[in-house]
Amino acid sequence: MQQLSWRDSAVREALSHIKQHKPFCYGLTNYIAANLSANVLLAVGAGPAIGAVFDWQKVFGSHASAVWVNAACLMSNTAGEVRQAAQAAHHAGVPWVLDPVAVGAGAVEYDRVVQGLLEFRPTAIRGNASELIALAGGEGGGQGVETTLASQEALPTIQAFSRRLGCITAVSGPTDYITDGDRTIFVEGGDARLTQVTGAGCSLGGLIAAFLSTSADPLTAVAAAHVVYAQASERASSARGTGSFAVSFLDHLSLLDPHEA
Amino acid sequence: MQQLSWRDSAVREALSHIKQHKPFCYGLTNYIAANLSANVLLAVGAGPAIGAVFDWQKVFGSHASAVWVNAACLMSNTAGEVRQAAQAAHHAGVPWVLDPVAVGAGAVEYDRVVQGLLEFRPTAIRGNASELIALAGGEGGGQGVETTLASQEALPTIQAFSRRLGCITAVSGPTDYITDGDRTIFVEGGDARLTQVTGAGCSLGGLIAAFLSTSADPLTAVAAAHVVYAQASERASSARGTGSFAVSFLDHLSLLDPHEA
Amino acid sequence: MQQLSWRDSAVREALSHIKQHKPFCYGLTNYIAANLSANVLLAVGAGPAIGAVFDWQKVFGSHASAVWVNAACLMSNTAGEVRQAAQAAHHAGVPWVLDPVAVGAGAVEYDRVVQGLLEFRPTAIRGNASELIALAGGEGGGQGVETTLASQEALPTIQAFSRRLGCITAVSGPTDYITDGDRTIFVEGGDARLTQVTGAGCSLGGLIAAFLSTSADPLTAVAAAHVVYAQASERASSARGTGSFAVSFLDHLSLLDPHEA
Repeated sequence: MQQLSWRDSAVREALSHIKQHKPFCYGLTNYIAANLSANVLLAVGAGPAIGAVFDWQKVFGSHASAVWVNAACLMSNTAGEVRQAAQAAHHAGVPWVLDPVAVGAGAVEYDRVVQGLLEFRPTAIRGNASELIALAGGEGGGQGVETTLASQEALPTIQAFSRRLGCITAVSGPTDYITDGDRTIFVEGGDARLTQVTGAGCSLGGLIAAFLSTSADPLTAVAAAHVVYAQASERASSARGTGSFAVSFLDHLSLLDPHEA
Repeated sequence: MQQLSWRDSAVREALSHIKQHKPFCYGLTNYIAANLSANVLLAVGAGPAIGAVFDWQKVFGSHASAVWVNAACLMSNTAGEVRQAAQAAHHAGVPWVLDPVAVGAGAVEYDRVVQGLLEFRPTAIRGNASELIALAGGEGGGQGVETTLASQEALPTIQAFSRRLGCITAVSGPTDYITDGDRTIFVEGGDARLTQVTGAGCSLGGLIAAFLSTSADPLTAVAAAHVVYAQASERASSARGTGSFAVSFLDHLSLLDPHEA
Repeated sequence: MQQLSWRDSAVREALSHIKQHKPFCYGLTNYIAANLSANVLLAVGAGPAIGAVFDWQKVFGSHASAVWVNAACLMSNTAGEVRQAAQAAHHAGVPWVLDPVAVGAGAVEYDRVVQGLLEFRPTAIRGNASELIALAGGEGGGQGVETTLASQEALPTIQAFSRRLGCITAVSGPTDYITDGDRTIFVEGGDARLTQVTGAGCSLGGLIAAFLSTSADPLTAVAAAHVVYAQASERASSARGTGSFAVSFLDHLSLLDPHEA
């Protein structure tokens, strides 16, 4: 298993690419996380648009450089709208990210609709251990949007799942694991207070999309997004409380310099 | 009339309880306040989930440790969805909080739907003086989401209203009053700039839910949530403008130590 | 062409008016920008309410001191609801602002609905160069919500457009231009990082509404809102990253003193 960190040139090159190309990233996400998600993308230099409106999901879903779908967008989008965005990205060959937030927490009808999105072959799937085990057909046993399992507990499951679906799967935790089924990368560091900032996990889905849009190596791209997240949150760790931690996290995300020594 | 303050051990024990048990709190709220509401709950150690999606309102409404319904969630939820959440909580014996935001401001159809939620017997109702007087059947005369009355003007009305409905009613203002009709607690302090942070009142509804989830004495629990809010906003009072006040308020909420001397 | 700046007494008097009269401003906007928009209005002393709920758009649309409609509100509002708000304001003689965000980015059906709102004669229209050129019937060629043109490139178009529609049009950029077709005002300054704060442009639509509500000279009112925005963002320019810039911007907005020397 390979480790990726901020010292690796692949990470810095990926970030540099985003700053240079300012990829247009289109997302469907829930309204709790929408503001932070857009600010995360703007902080690294990407150009986000969020939301389903009439023909946006078809037009933006197929013309964006990358797309992300946070399943809890279903709190203000119809299943049809969400499927349109995923389908548009899939058909146009646009990389897209699925975040199956809260899957496996007991809401059967919701879980069924999220499962149905796998039909459109997400390039990458991200979530916590409970969500990903549930999505893969196991008993994840999450509570609402929180995981009850550690990230490494999901590793064998998501490796098999990635091989079966031909996608990249990334599980967040104190150590993040990113796998395509054959190769697995792990990312360490970060700050646990990121879990006390609502929408931080959801926003990572958007950031993964931005990294996927500019990279020839999707596995490294997904891992690089996790490295950048961990690095920015680590640099924010001197913040006193959860409010200023969130502000400082965004600051450091915007200040991360791909060319620093 | 009894006063409750940060010096009272009942308040600190209630906060300590939340940090220990991390109650899962489920809310329906408007998308203006959703982000702050979740961050307020995370700051004290609770685990929030927000939004109506397919069967979430039935499943989470009955399985959560507590539920809160901010009536302005109707801007993205149907009346049916909101009623499902309230009904699920009521039938499962889960304590739930109603925030009748903007009731009495002239929108008759909206007011009627909010009134209809009383059928599901909220454990506690919170709002400003205009809203609560209007909900109780009087002329509150609010302007949009702002009150035109002082909190003490609502006191006789909400005491009678609480007795009639068998619920706790809490009115926010420079002095907050929390009553079950027989006993009334008042809470002082805070910082007026909290009214310049959008969603701060709405988020208090979520915090009340968290306190209700862990307490055997609901009246004290609701009052304790007000004390914690006042205490955090007071500690944030050195902030220069409204932007950093909001950040500092969240910081102090997350830093409040139940065991401090 | 006239310049307006923070040194002009007309700007300070307009801001002073808002602080004194606390106008109730009603808005329909997208859920990404809703929180910031409300906080921007609260920071200068206005009283915002946001969202379409049953009869809110009719009641608040006609009773507010001013109304703003950000077209991307269509991501959670129906076309009918948005038209109700615009129509209510128009019929009641309430000044209202249209922000045609993302028009001209390729979503034909969305663009058609936004065009349809011109029927209700907005008092003022604000946007970036791509959006305004597209709204006026030209080829704006925006990418999602970003402009691909400089503000001065839109000037001849929006001058003709304002004359034709009898409205004020304001285009944002490093230099802002505000015109009624005959007179044109320009506003300089600000900080480019404002474009890295999601919803900052959308929130300016709300602020314009607040200024329109208290002024006898609508052109100056719209320009004054731009001056106040530029001034607050300039004072925030010592912020390190995009997160603290947003916080500092709100701080300075709330601290701007109409009576300072």
